[in-house]
Amino acid sequence: MDVLIVGSIAYDSITSPLGSAPNTLGGSATYAGLAASFHQRRLNLNNIGLVGVVGTDFRDEDFATLTNAGLDTTGVEVVEGSTFHWIGSYHGNMAQAETHETHLNVFESFEPKVPSHGSSSTITFCANLHPALQLSVLDQSTPKRASILDSMNLWINIALDQLIEAMKRVDIVVINDGEATMLAKTDNLVEAAKQVQSMASIPTLIIKKGEHGVLALHGDDFIALPAYPSEAVVDPTGCGDTFAGTLAACLANDEGAVSTKELREALVHATVSASFTLEDFGTKGIESISIDAYQGRLLRYCAITGTSIDSS
Amino acid sequence: MDVLIVGSIAYDSITSPLGSAPNTLGGSATYAGLAASFHQRRLNLNNIGLVGVVGTDFRDEDFATLTNAGLDTTGVEVVEGSTFHWIGSYHGNMAQAETHETHLNVFESFEPKVPSHGSSSTITFCANLHPALQLSVLDQSTPKRASILDSMNLWINIALDQLIEAMKRVDIVVINDGEATMLAKTDNLVEAAKQVQSMASIPTLIIKKGEHGVLALHGDDFIALPAYPSEAVVDPTGCGDTFAGTLAACLANDEGAVSTKELREALVHATVSASFTLEDFGTKGIESISIDAYQGRLLRYCAITGTSIDSS
Repeated sequence: MDVLIVGSIAYDSITSPLGSAPNTLGGSATYAGLAASFHQRRLNLNNIGLVGVVGTDFRDEDFATLTNAGLDTTGVEVVEGSTFHWIGSYHGNMAQAETHETHLNVFESFEPKVPSHGSSSTITFCANLHPALQLSVLDQSTPKRASILDSMNLWINIALDQLIEAMKRVDIVVINDGEATMLAKTDNLVEAAKQVQSMASIPTLIIKKGEHGVLALHGDDFIALPAYPSEAVVDPTGCGDTFAGTLAACLANDEGAVSTKELREALVHATVSASFTLEDFGTKGIESISIDAYQGRLLRYCAITGTSIDSS
Repeated sequence: MDVLIVGSIAYDSITSPLGSAPNTLGGSATYAGLAASFHQRRLNLNNIGLVGVVGTDFRDEDFATLTNAGLDTTGVEVVEGSTFHWIGSYHGNMAQAETHETHLNVFESFEPKVPSHGSSSTITFCANLHPALQLSVLDQSTPKRASILDSMNLWINIALDQLIEAMKRVDIVVINDGEATMLAKTDNLVEAAKQVQSMASIPTLIIKKGEHGVLALHGDDFIALPAYPSEAVVDPTGCGDTFAGTLAACLANDEGAVSTKELREALVHATVSASFTLEDFGTKGIESISIDAYQGRLLRYCAITGTSIDSS
């Protein structure tokens, strides 16, 4: 398996200034998986597998969305009960979601089981879920190249020790700017990045800044990239998961130590991929990318930022 | 004259989490002028002139700071009374200044007079001042290459019609993100950029985003650059003026229409220059740059962002 992705598979009910999408396919593993599957086709990668749980209400058409994208769903359990359901809305500049209701349902007692053919993946990506479960995944998986972890503010508040323990176990930590300043207790994001890197001895720390792009520390090397300038922001749900799933797929395309140049190029792909997710409700934006549309936007991003990449 | 700069010359009393600086040299024309004078030396430009007003309390040593930097101060009037005095402080991530007191003093009745040898400069830069005064400067000056205008939220609130009239008269408008969303009445900055460009038929609109970098529209072409990742933010006063003064100086180094590539490279220089201003109180950061320190940071910025520039 090239990429193992563990996280939530959910139904989201989303309202944004541009409309609403009730009970639409979502979840961190879903977005990361669909993004990775696009790059699997682009890069001719091997197997990309999901580990997650859904309820008996999970629709056949949503299973088909995952399998038609070429994702290995051997690790997706179906459990008696309802699928995780998140209800939220976006306002103003849509930088932050407002959560109205969270029904964990079958996700509440989720115990990730990594299938045997996923235990030595090239990349293991623990998408956003409880750090105790991320630690369990890391116990079950010895990735050949890199382990990646995403998180959220909730775990900083209620499971900080386990989160830091998990962060210490991975090669790459992906968090957002608010989480970084929360963890470091400083308002200067550059200082926060150094402190977070140091507090968990993180080789590579990637801080997602939403509409402001990304700031990363790869060892002592900084990487800074602006976001793709999107006018048509419809629904930012899943942008961070799209970003991280793309990163995982791009890094699965090589071996050995990750150079700063390779990481910067992977972050360019992650940035451009995320810009597709926010243009439609739910997973529609990332599901429907064509290679041509992607390459066109990638070239445009490079022109806008003056950034050059070898692997286009 | 290569660059004509019109704006405020002030004494600032600044408090930040890292200390304080009472009665320190400041003002939009001062920062823009000192930044432009650094690039004058770097690029072997000709004369850079300031137009402004100071009171009889203006210290000889501060005049010497301007003249020692090579600035032509023919256009700086000395008027009976006190120099413009701003008292403000920064908190948290220091993204915005809190104004405690503004004493306009001699600046209240300022009527800019462009010296005859400045009326056909290569670049005319109207730094932040009342749009009626910017219009007066534009009446007195026919720049050979480009006119540039900066502004602030105050003029959007109390002199919107004159501000839009002034914006319509220049080639390049430089504002910050908050001002752009205020003008366009939308929270999406990319949409705001297009709306502001359209409302005043602005050929080139540059939106400063502070720690998040810059977004520009040059005709239909977007440019996006991250800020230099600064850990040692001491005092952000004058960063925007440093940015715009650098832009003015860089654009004075060529002739004819400004290409997107040239503008992007000028914005890289503007971004890197601004990072020096915020590292010390008042003008000390921009006054003390050495060419070597500048070139080193420019190369580091290019490595961090993957951006390449020809004119280093």
